[in-house]
Amino acid sequence: MNSAYQQLLEKVYEIHDIEKAIQVLSWDKETNMPAAGNTARVQQMTTLRRLHHRLFASDEMGELIEAAATALNGASPDSNEARLIRYLRRSYADERKLPEEFVRRLSQVSGAAHPAWVQARAENNFALFRPHLEQVVALAQEMAELYGYEDEKYDPLLDKFEHGMKTAEVRAIFAAVKTELKPLLTAVTARANTIDDRFLHQQFPVAPQQEFARYAATAVGYDFSRGHLGTVVHPFATSFSRDDARITTRWNPDFLNAGLFGTLHESGHAMYEQGTAPDLARTPLARGTSSGIHESQSRMLENIVGRSRGFWQAHFPRLQALFPAQLSGVTADDFYRAVNKAQPTFIRVEADELTYNFHIILRFELEQAMLNGELAVADLPGAWRGKMQELLGVTPPTDTAGCLQDIHWTRPSFGYFPTYALGNLYAAQLYEAAIQQNPAIATDMAQGNPASLVSWLREKVHRHGRKYTPGELIIQATGQPLSHEPFRRYVTAKFGELYGLS
Amino acid sequence: MNSAYQQLLEKVYEIHDIEKAIQVLSWDKETNMPAAGNTARVQQMTTLRRLHHRLFASDEMGELIEAAATALNGASPDSNEARLIRYLRRSYADERKLPEEFVRRLSQVSGAAHPAWVQARAENNFALFRPHLEQVVALAQEMAELYGYEDEKYDPLLDKFEHGMKTAEVRAIFAAVKTELKPLLTAVTARANTIDDRFLHQQFPVAPQQEFARYAATAVGYDFSRGHLGTVVHPFATSFSRDDARITTRWNPDFLNAGLFGTLHESGHAMYEQGTAPDLARTPLARGTSSGIHESQSRMLENIVGRSRGFWQAHFPRLQALFPAQLSGVTADDFYRAVNKAQPTFIRVEADELTYNFHIILRFELEQAMLNGELAVADLPGAWRGKMQELLGVTPPTDTAGCLQDIHWTRPSFGYFPTYALGNLYAAQLYEAAIQQNPAIATDMAQGNPASLVSWLREKVHRHGRKYTPGELIIQATGQPLSHEPFRRYVTAKFGELYGLS
Repeated sequence: MNSAYQQLLEKVYEIHDIEKAIQVLSWDKETNMPAAGNTARVQQMTTLRRLHHRLFASDEMGELIEAAATALNGASPDSNEARLIRYLRRSYADERKLPEEFVRRLSQVSGAAHPAWVQARAENNFALFRPHLEQVVALAQEMAELYGYEDEKYDPLLDKFEHGMKTAEVRAIFAAVKTELKPLLTAVTARANTIDDRFLHQQFPVAPQQEFARYAATAVGYDFSRGHLGTVVHPFATSFSRDDARITTRWNPDFLNAGLFGTLHESGHAMYEQGTAPDLARTPLARGTSSGIHESQSRMLENIVGRSRGFWQAHFPRLQALFPAQLSGVTADDFYRAVNKAQPTFIRVEADELTYNFHIILRFELEQAMLNGELAVADLPGAWRGKMQELLGVTPPTDTAGCLQDIHWTRPSFGYFPTYALGNLYAAQLYEAAIQQNPAIATDMAQGNPASLVSWLREKVHRHGRKYTPGELIIQATGQPLSHEPFRRYVTAKFGELYGLS
Repeated sequence: MNSAYQQLLEKVYEIHDIEKAIQVLSWDKETNMPAAGNTARVQQMTTLRRLHHRLFASDEMGELIEAAATALNGASPDSNEARLIRYLRRSYADERKLPEEFVRRLSQVSGAAHPAWVQARAENNFALFRPHLEQVVALAQEMAELYGYEDEKYDPLLDKFEHGMKTAEVRAIFAAVKTELKPLLTAVTARANTIDDRFLHQQFPVAPQQEFARYAATAVGYDFSRGHLGTVVHPFATSFSRDDARITTRWNPDFLNAGLFGTLHESGHAMYEQGTAPDLARTPLARGTSSGIHESQSRMLENIVGRSRGFWQAHFPRLQALFPAQLSGVTADDFYRAVNKAQPTFIRVEADELTYNFHIILRFELEQAMLNGELAVADLPGAWRGKMQELLGVTPPTDTAGCLQDIHWTRPSFGYFPTYALGNLYAAQLYEAAIQQNPAIATDMAQGNPASLVSWLREKVHRHGRKYTPGELIIQATGQPLSHEPFRRYVTAKFGELYGLS
C-alpha cells in the first residue's frame, strides 16, 4: 500500500483507539461505576478527550491527510481510501475549529451536569439542574459560533449528527408530518378503548424477561458472540469494534414493554455496527453514517419487525410459556394489538409509533428556542408543559415526566433529538424499498422471520459504515431522497387496520 | 502552590489518567468483553500504553521533575511533594530505559498470549501456550537487560513489584520458611483426618453465596459505595480512584471457599486503595506501595481475619441461615476448623495458609530458571511436576492443574509471584505489631470484629499509599524490617491448636 496513506492510517488508528477508549470509559460509567467514582472518571475522560483533540487537530494530521490525498490521486472516488480522506478532511476541518480549552470545558461541564440531572430527575427538582443546563446552552451557543454557519445557528450542531441536513429541511418535513399525522392521531384516540393493553402492566419477574429479550434479540439477528447485554438506568448501544458492539436495557418489573422493545431497539443500533465491513475497521468509517440512519436501524428492529403481527404470531407462544399466569388467555393477536396501542403519553421512550414524532418535534422546537436565546432555561418547564398540551393534548404532572426525562441536555448535543424522528422516516422508506426490491421480504416478515430484511439492510446500509453521507446512502438504497411519504403510508395502513379506520 | 510544582502536577495528572483508563479497559476486558473483542481491545490498550510511555518518558517530563525539585528545595523530605518527586525520579529513570517499540511489543505479545493461555488451560494443552510463553520469557530477558542489574537478572524485574528487595534476600527468607514449615506441615499432614471439611464440598447456589460474600466484605470494611463487585474467571482487584476501587470473584457452585475467601481477599486489596489519603489522589502515590504490601492487606482480610475463630463465631449463624440444608448440624467451630484444613493440593489460589508459600517457592524457582535460560519452556510441565513432588509431595494429574493454572505468565511479570509469599510474612508481622501497639485489637478480633485492626491498618499502611517504599513502611509500622519470624509464630500457634500438636 502507498506509504503516505499507510502513515496516515497509523495515525488514524491511534486516534480511533483513543476515541474507543473514551467510549469504554463511558460505558463503564453507565453500567458499573459507583456514583462516588464520577469525579475521577470525568477527569480521566477529559484527559483522553484533550489528547484525542490534540492528536486529531494537530498540524501533523493535516499534513498527513493532504500527503495521502496527493499520493492517492487517481484512486476511484468510491474506494475506501478516497472516502476516508473525504471524511477526514471534513471532520479535521471541524475539529480545528475547537480550541483544546473548549474541549476540556465541554467535558467538564457535561461531566458535572450528568449527576446533577440524575438527582434533579429523581427528586423532581428542576432547580438543581437549571444552572447546569444554562452552562450547557451557553456551550452549545459557543460551539455553533466556533463551527460557524450561514443560515441558522442550529445548522452546524445538527450537521454533527446528520451531515448535510439543514434545520430548514427538518422543519419542513416535521411540518408535513404534523399536518398529516394529526387527523390519524385524532381518529385513533377516539377509538382508544378498542385495544386493551392492561395485561402488559402486571408483575413480570426480571429473569424471564431477560431470557426472552435475549431470545428475541438473537431472533432479529443480534450476534451475542460479538456483543454483550448490560443493565442500566438509561439504555443505549455502543461499540468498541464490529466484534464488540454492546446493548443495554432497563428492566421494569411492572411493565413488559420497556425491557423487551428497548432490547430490540438497541439490538438494531448494535447490528449496524456489527455489520460494518471488516476492511473499514479501526477507522472513523467503521460506524453508522449518521444518527438518523442509526436510528432507522433501531426503529426498524423495534417497530417494523418487533411490533409486527408476524413476529408475534411466531414468537408469542415462547413468551407466554415464560409468563403463563400473566399471559393466560391472551392470544398472539391480542398481544400484537396491545403493544401497538397508540395514545398520547408523557414519556418519549415509551411512546408508540404514532405519537413518538410529536415528542421529537417538541424537543426540536424547544432546543432551538433555547439556542437562539428566545427561551430562558428558567422558563423551560412551563414551555414544555405548554407544548405538550399543544402537540399531544396532555400535560405532564411533574418535571421528571416532563423536561427532566431525557439525558440528552446534560451535553450540548442540540441537533440530536430530530434525528430520532428522521430515523422513523428513514426506516419506513428503507422498508418500502426493501420489499419493492425483494418481495420475499414481505412474505418472510408475515411469518415472523426478519432474516431476508436484515440481509438487505446489511448489504444496503450496514456494510458501508460511514463511507457515504446519509443523503447519499438513502438515495443509493431506495432511489429517492428522504421523504415522509413512506412513513405516512406505513402508519396509515398499520393503525388504520388496528383501529378499524376506513 | 509553587508554579513549577503545579506544572509538574498537571502533567502527572494527565499521565495518571491515561494509566487509569488502561486499567478500565483491562477491567472491562476481564468482566464484560466478548472474546471476539480481544483483537481490537489489545490494539486500544497498546495505543494507550504507547501514549502513556511517550508522555512519561519525554524529555519534557524530566525537565518538569527537575524544575519542580529545584523549586521545592528545602521542603520537608517527608512532604507529599518531596515524596512524589522521589518516586517520579525513580520511575522516570526506569521508563526512559524502555523504547516505545518495546512497550508496543510487550502489549501485543501479552494481548495475544492471554487468549492462547485461556484455551490451553481449558483444553489442557500446553503446546498451545508454549510459543507464547517463549515470547514472554524472551521479553522478560530483554526487559531485565534494558533495566540493567548488578547481581542477578531477576533483580530488576522483582524491583518493579517490590522496590528495594533483592532476589538473594527473597531466596534467604524462602529458605528459612521452607526449613521451618516443613516439620509443621509433616506433623499436620499426619493428623489430616482430624478435620472434616466435606461439608464445604456440596451444592451451594450462587445467589446466596453472593449475598453472604457482600455481607462479609462489608463486615471487614470494604466500602461498596466506593466500589463494585464483578464476576470473572480469574479474580482480581483494581482501582480507578480511591472512590472507585473494585473487586471481582468467581463463584463455584460446588465449593463454598472460592467465592467467599476470594471476595475477602480482593476486599483487602481494594480497601488499601480506598484508604489512600485524598491528597495523594490522581498521582502515582495514590496506590499501594508494592505488590508484597498489597498482598499483606488481602491475606490479612482473607486469612488472619476471615479464617479466624472469632470471625466465624460472630458470622456463621448468618451463613447457616442462608444454607440451612447444607450446613445443618455444623457448628461455628466445625466451620472454622474446616476452612483451615491444611493439606497439599495442586491449586495455589485454593491452598491453605500452611502450604501456600510452597506454591510460591516453586514458581519463584521455576521463573528464575526460565529467565536465566536454565529451563527451556518446553520442559516446564515436567519441571513443574518434579518440583510439586519435591515441595509438597503431590503430582498434578494435568497441566491445567499444573503449570497452566495461573494467568501471570501471559505477561513478562516475573518477580510478581514471590510477593504473594512476602505478603503472608508482612501480614503476620503487621498483625503482631498491631496487637502489641493496641491490645484491644486482639479482644475485638476474638469477638469477630476487625474494625480496630482495620483502623490501625488505615493509619499505618493505607493512607500512605506509595509515599514510602515497602522497606520503609514495614519499619515505620512495626519497628522492624521484614522477618519471617512472626509468620512462623502465627502458623505454629494456629495450626498447633487446630491439629492438637504440642
